[in-house]
Amino acid sequence: MTVITSPGRVLGIVGGGQLGRMIGEAAAPLGVEVVVLDPTPDCPAFPVVRDQIVGGFDDADAVASLADRADVLTYEIELADPAVLESVSNEYAVEVHPNPSTLELIQDKYIQNEHLRSAGIPTPDYYPVDDVSDLERALESTGRPAMVKARRGGYDGRGTMPIDATTELETVIDSIGGPAVVERFVDFTRELSVVGARGRTGTQSFVVGENIHREEILRETVVPARTDPAIRERAQAVAATVLESLDGYGTFGIELFETESGEILVNEIAPRPHNSGHWTIEGAPTSQFEQHVRAVMGMPLGATEPISPTVSANILGDVAEPTSARLAGVDAVLAEPHAHLHWYGKREVRPLRKMGHLTVVGNDPDTDPATLLKTARTYRQRLHFES
Amino acid sequence: MTVITSPGRVLGIVGGGQLGRMIGEAAAPLGVEVVVLDPTPDCPAFPVVRDQIVGGFDDADAVASLADRADVLTYEIELADPAVLESVSNEYAVEVHPNPSTLELIQDKYIQNEHLRSAGIPTPDYYPVDDVSDLERALESTGRPAMVKARRGGYDGRGTMPIDATTELETVIDSIGGPAVVERFVDFTRELSVVGARGRTGTQSFVVGENIHREEILRETVVPARTDPAIRERAQAVAATVLESLDGYGTFGIELFETESGEILVNEIAPRPHNSGHWTIEGAPTSQFEQHVRAVMGMPLGATEPISPTVSANILGDVAEPTSARLAGVDAVLAEPHAHLHWYGKREVRPLRKMGHLTVVGNDPDTDPATLLKTARTYRQRLHFES
Repeated sequence: MTVITSPGRVLGIVGGGQLGRMIGEAAAPLGVEVVVLDPTPDCPAFPVVRDQIVGGFDDADAVASLADRADVLTYEIELADPAVLESVSNEYAVEVHPNPSTLELIQDKYIQNEHLRSAGIPTPDYYPVDDVSDLERALESTGRPAMVKARRGGYDGRGTMPIDATTELETVIDSIGGPAVVERFVDFTRELSVVGARGRTGTQSFVVGENIHREEILRETVVPARTDPAIRERAQAVAATVLESLDGYGTFGIELFETESGEILVNEIAPRPHNSGHWTIEGAPTSQFEQHVRAVMGMPLGATEPISPTVSANILGDVAEPTSARLAGVDAVLAEPHAHLHWYGKREVRPLRKMGHLTVVGNDPDTDPATLLKTARTYRQRLHFES
Repeated sequence: MTVITSPGRVLGIVGGGQLGRMIGEAAAPLGVEVVVLDPTPDCPAFPVVRDQIVGGFDDADAVASLADRADVLTYEIELADPAVLESVSNEYAVEVHPNPSTLELIQDKYIQNEHLRSAGIPTPDYYPVDDVSDLERALESTGRPAMVKARRGGYDGRGTMPIDATTELETVIDSIGGPAVVERFVDFTRELSVVGARGRTGTQSFVVGENIHREEILRETVVPARTDPAIRERAQAVAATVLESLDGYGTFGIELFETESGEILVNEIAPRPHNSGHWTIEGAPTSQFEQHVRAVMGMPLGATEPISPTVSANILGDVAEPTSARLAGVDAVLAEPHAHLHWYGKREVRPLRKMGHLTVVGNDPDTDPATLLKTARTYRQRLHFES
């Protein structure tokens, strides 16, 4: 049973980027204090949390210092080291959520897929490859085009390469630079995602969002996804099965493909709050960040049913070269009654770097999501980075 | 025009109690960083803001240190010193909002009433008193019962005494211990409040709330107030006139009496976010805390129209003696889909001390506020402080 105290129980987070920052914003009302571990001094989360330990995500001593100060450990970045987390968990008698074993299986795209397949969850066909001859063999099954993904460490399009009819396989292997999986190319109709949580009393998911990517970077999430209600239900059901197959507590982001034939395939799992769930801050009764805090701290999960359609739009670096972050045009967004702005506190803006997001919440349940998307894009165009 | 940077512009707050804490929670998404000044080390706001300066609210050196680190100064407690704020504002070329002159006039109940009267705003009849003979004379005008209030420094019922037929006037003067005002006793039907803000582009108010006090301490706020729509409109109009009569930017809490005859009298003004506006965190598109940040930092004000009726209920110390704060029964509240909990991070629970609040938001615009109030009270009863 939860007892709230002052000072509060401490949630130690490996990673202090925007996700850590938004977890920090959500934790205080619940009487939970946050300490983050991040290599960047004065990281994005620092101004809103009790303290930061400056150190690498996988630095055993730094993680031990974090464990020493924390009642529960979590991570907001897949670069956390499951073995280190497992060992400090034992040494300091601190729970880690989601389980380090869950992080471990998610970190490796091949193992992740194997896990999903063994749980009967549909994914694109995949084959592990280490070298050109593996790749050749795999492509005999998948055909071309196909996607090659590094087994470990890829994100926001890094570590991912499409293969078409003319792609040189040596180039692919060189550029991925390590073990990979080849996936059959999925000619999907839509990318969907379900953000859900595992807590002590079961699982609970937010409504299915529709993700719009460009250059492999998420641009907008439209909620609910503009697809058949039956498809949305199927996506929820697949996501529920994924959540049930995992160990430990916390919020998870589950990215899905909707195919032409109405199939739902799991593309990727994130063992943490996810960019496609940022809309929940204003669009749902409980945000994905509060849900994560509740889940990992052993509190009951909160309600997830949204009131109105909602769209979130990422604010990406629109600069040619890295430079100090100065976002202008803000007043023209804040003056809009249904717009909400979230700044991530990053010092430097870089091309396509995620610097913040804005959310537009519909007036009522009947608001057309397509109109909201247009509105969100219009608002975002008013913003730009000054040099 | 607002430009958001990292690190962000700094809002220095005199006071780091629960109001400072909730301002801190609201500031980060807007790219604003918070430093608080508070005499209690590790004050309630500290875990969610960039830094705390430990010092008295009226300590000139401490306020100067705050000004030195801030781009804008504000205060969340009336114990701030207007003269000190005025002088550091000049010395450090830092704006202070609301204007120190506004704080000065609000700090003294007599001057506050004189200000309202001169602006044509209705208040209960009042008379300044320094001694027993003043008091006798004043009571000839007000009759008995009447209320005596210390001109300066009273809050949550402190510095306030009712006078009935048998009250000894010497006792009153002794116990108030300084200059006071006597007010004609108002046999009000309801206590109402309007929380509103003054920004660069005008004023904007939240919906009228109904305040339920016991032992002079706010217990619950019901939104909208359960009164005639015409009365609510009158209350909004009076509050708008109050806001227009003041100087400087920020959120203000305006407490009102609704009389039997449908008159609206101004009871008291707070130059800061107010307990009766806590419902806005979940119940309105912009919270009173975000609104305060927007107003004092020169950003456009946010939308205020609520979606559904909302009730906030204070969580007060239910202990006989001061003791370490340990709130139990939390899970039974968090498990309720429409309940939201806010913990203030105070180390010690004391009898009737404000330790947190909970908010219950109606399902839809037609939710009956009376039912919500009952629900909020039921939820609150599940909470108790462990010794």
